Formats: sequence, C-alpha cells, structure tokens
Amino acid sequence: MKIFCVEGTLVATARIGGLESHRLLVVQDRKGDKQVAVDPVGCKPGDWVIACGSSAARDAAGSKEYPSDLTIVGIIDYWDEESPGEERSEEPELLVVESVAPSPNAPSQNGGARR
Amino acid sequence: MKIFCVEGTLVATARIGGLESHRLLVVQDRKGDKQVAVDPVGCKPGDWVIACGSSAARDAAGSKEYPSDLTIVGIIDYWDEESPGEERSEEPELLVVESVAPSPNAPSQNGGARR
Amino acid sequence: MKIFCVEGTLVATARIGGLESHRLLVVQDRKGDKQVAVDPVGCKPGDWVIACGSSAARDAAGSKEYPSDLTIVGIIDYWDEESPGEERSEEPELLVVESVAPSPNAPSQNGGARR
Amino acid sequence: MKIFCVEGTLVATARIGGLESHRLLVVQDRKGDKQVAVDPVGCKPGDWVIACGSSAARDAAGSKEYPSDLTIVGIIDYWDEESPGEERSEEPELLVVESVAPSPNAPSQNGGARR
Amino acid sequence: MKIFCVEGTLVATARIGGLESHRLLVVQDRKGDKQVAVDPVGCKPGDWVIACGSSAARDAAGSKEYPSDLTIVGIIDYWDEESPGEERSEEPELLVVESVAPSPNAPSQNGGARR
Repeated sequence: MKIFCVEGTLVATARIGGLESHRLLVVQDRKGDKQVAVDPVGCKPGDWVIACGSSAARDAAGSKEYPSDLTIVGIIDYWDEESPGEERSEEPELLVVESVAPSPNAPSQNGGARR
Repeated sequence: MKIFCVEGTLVATARIGGLESHRLLVVQDRKGDKQVAVDPVGCKPGDWVIACGSSAARDAAGSKEYPSDLTIVGIIDYWDEESPGEERSEEPELLVVESVAPSPNAPSQNGGARR
Repeated sequence: MKIFCVEGTLVATARIGGLESHRLLVVQDRKGDKQVAVDPVGCKPGDWVIACGSSAARDAAGSKEYPSDLTIVGIIDYWDEESPGEERSEEPELLVVESVAPSPNAPSQNGGARR
Repeated sequence: MKIFCVEGTLVATARIGGLESHRLLVVQDRKGDKQVAVDPVGCKPGDWVIACGSSAARDAAGSKEYPSDLTIVGIIDYWDEESPGEERSEEPELLVVESVAPSPNAPSQNGGARR
Repeated sequence: MKIFCVEGTLVATARIGGLESHRLLVVQDRKGDKQVAVDPVGCKPGDWVIACGSSAARDAAGSKEYPSDLTIVGIIDYWDEESPGEERSEEPELLVVESVAPSPNAPSQNGGARR
C-alpha cells in the first residue's frame, strides 16, 4: 500500500457507469505526484492515508467488478519508527469501517500524522 | 487512477482482434510521458481525463476479456483543492455514460479543466 | 498500452514450457529502456508498436494461461495530434489480425511511424 | 519480490474491514521510498525482508479476498553474491512459517542481513 | 518481461508456506536495481535472464496459487538487433524446460550473453 496525502475532491461528471457510488479524491504522494483514488472510508483534505492498488483495489472499493486501480483503505494516525531491538507496540485499537458502501456522513477521524 | 491529457487518436491498422471496438487515444501525463488508452467515454484532444489500469481496465473497456491495460474512465471537470479543515463540497452531479459500448457519436463534454 | 520500437528478436533456448508458441522481441521505449515482449502480430525491427501489460497481456498472447506480462497488440501507423477544438478524424480502417496464433509468415505491415 | 527494510508499525485506526487481521508495517526500499506492507510472518524493525505485490499479495496475506497489494513473504538472512562460474550453494535449510494466519506471538527470527 | 542479470541465491529461512519449492535469486536490472525472483528454470550467477511479473508470474512458478510476483521464464542466449529492412532470423531452436517443477539438478545452460 502506498502513502498519500488527500488534496481534494475530483469532479468528473462524465464517467463510466460503475464509478458512481464513491467519491473520487485527488491524492499526492511524498514526491508530489498526483493520482486519483476511490474513497470508501470517508477522508477529508489533509488526511494522510494508505491506498491499495492492483486487483485488491477493486474488492476494497466494494466488489470484484468495481473499475478502480487505486482505493483508499485506511487513514493513518501515525507510524512508530522504532529502533531495532525494542519491543513491538501492542496492537492498535481498530475502529473498522464495517462496509465499503459510500459514507459521506461517516465521522471523520482526526488525521494529524506524526511522521 | 492516473491523470492524463488527451493528445490525439492513434491509428494502428494491424492490431489483434478484440481491440476493434474502441478508439485508441494517445494520452500524456503531467511529466510528459505518453501512453495509449482505450476510450469508452468519448473524449476529444485537450480533455483532461482519469484512466484506470490493472485488471480493472479490462472491465472498464467493456468485458473481462478486453485486452486493455489502460482505459479512460472519466473526463475531469475540475478538482477542488481545499485547505485542511474546510467543509467538503457537495457531491457532484453525475452525468454517467450508461454503458461502455463504443460511442463515436456521443456528445462531447466541455472538458476545460481548472487545476 | 505503452509505446515501443522493436529492436530485434530475442534468442532464449532455455525457457519454460508455455512460452514456446510465439517469438520474443526486444523492444525499447522512448526513454531507451529495454523490455521483452511476446509478438502475436508479426512485427519487424524498426516497427513502432503498442504493447499491453497486466493480466490482459496473457489473453492477448492467446490464452488466460500464457505466461506473459507484456504482449504486442498493434503496430502504429501514425498518431494524429490535433489541436483542441478540431474535429475528430474518422475511424481508421482496421486490418485486424484475426487470431493470436503465431504467424511467422503473416504479411508484414509497412510500419513507418510519423510522430 | 522487492527488498525492503522494516521501519516500524503503522497505526491506522480507521481502516476498511478485511484489513483487520494483520499488522501493517512501514517498509523502506534501498532508495529510501516508503510503502506499507501486510505482515503475516512476524517481523521486527530493522529486519530486511522480501515483499510480494500484484495479485499474489492477496493470497500471501491469507486469502484471495484480502485487500493487500504488498505482503511480506520472507525475512532475509543474507544473500550470496557469487562470481560467475562458481558452483551453486546447496539449498538453504528452510524454516517455513506454516500458515499465514496472523501470529503476533510467533518467535522473531534473528534478521541481521549481511549484504 | 524484464531483463536481469542473476547475482546470487537469497537465503530466507523464515518465509511463508508456498514459497518452499523453488530457489529465490537476487537479480539486478541494467540500471542496477535489485529484486528477488523465483527460479523454476535452473539459473546460475552471471546468467542474463528474462523474468515475468504480474499474475503470469504465479503460473510461471508452477500454479495459480504460487505467491510470486516475479518469476524467471528464460535464459537469454543473445539478442539480435537488426537494422530495419533486413530479413528476420529463422526461429531459434527451442530447448524447452518441460515443466516448472523445481530442478536443482537440471543441466545448466551456457549463458554468456552477447548484447
């Protein structure tokens, strides 16, 4: 999964059927390259997210037939860069988005990312 | 999905069967690299579009068997780069191309992209 | 699909079964990077071609099981870079290679590419 | 498979269902680019690992439906860069992780990598 | 398929089940980037090889379920870079490796590559 920052919403009124059910977001990687990702999680601009590509992007967006090659699968709280030899952190408490149906009203997560 | 500008039509008279039903367009990304994409939407040169790769490109072009690895899935009107903390724009009104059958006579969209 | 120029034939006498039925060609992209593609169309050195990757490369080479990740799917005659606003060219007359069985004796196309 | 060094654990409390069962690790390649990989093996920061992408990443993470495009499939002990012409080393003794179910308590391997 | 030079054997004693049956080789492309490939052909360090990615890498390694995203599919004897207009070389005599089961004792090919 690649790491991106959410820039904003993409407006594309002419699109193929099948892309109707989710928002499309413009995301930018750490080098500044922009791509467009499907958002089943409910992100807002400024969130740091992880996005999945390949065939997994399709199921992640809701179904095997979904025409996506990049889908956001999680919002990053932070990552913990430990020195070698230290104990592993305990498992994070997971707040799981239960389905991948579009959720424009899902509560947003506080997405400040400490890098 | 990656972002491209449509350069023009590709003429390839010797091509494998299965590629017959759609136009092939030369598209260029923001760094100037050119690729060739299948067009089921009905684009014109100068349009900014999003194109899907991977296995999703095949269904996006019409069927699981379609031999494409890059298919245009939408024409960009504009994208909205908001500052963190602002409210999300409301959902765009979708003008959906109902099928992905080739439509050389489909009305073209006004594709001026404000970036 | 990516754009390549055909450099020449690759000779690989030790290869896995399944790769037996087609010629392998060394192709070079516009940046000079070389790859190897399966040729079901019947190309010659100097031809500019489009090649398909991902899972579509397998069916394009003949079957779902074909072990290819890059398959030539067409020979470029030329591409037409129009200014925005001009009318689209009419659909090219397609000379379709009817199957993707290996055709060492297929008539070669005149592949001069105007870029 | 690509070669990475494990940096640390990623904490993403808002994630799609299906990503719940494994830890997510931030990994860095030899050029310094960071990605996020699913860990079914039980790695620790500082380990050098190999990670698999494409559709294989999904089965490697546990099932065809797993929404991953990058999954760690092994911890590197070392690699043996021989000069051309020398005899091949004998097959390494394999300590295989028997399943890919999540194993937060699996004994960690001593992963110092001689390169 | 991409072109690589075989550097040496990778030793990874902790690896997921399913990766047990083949050797893993460190390979290097013409730019110096290293990856790890599954070897069903029987290569030795110094061999120039072609390797297949995407979903085809899995079948090339032996089965649809094999967790590989890069599999060696042939050893390069040489490639023939002809000038445009010359006659094609006759088809190479194929010495095909009949199956993709692991063959640590398969006779090695003389792999000097004239480029």
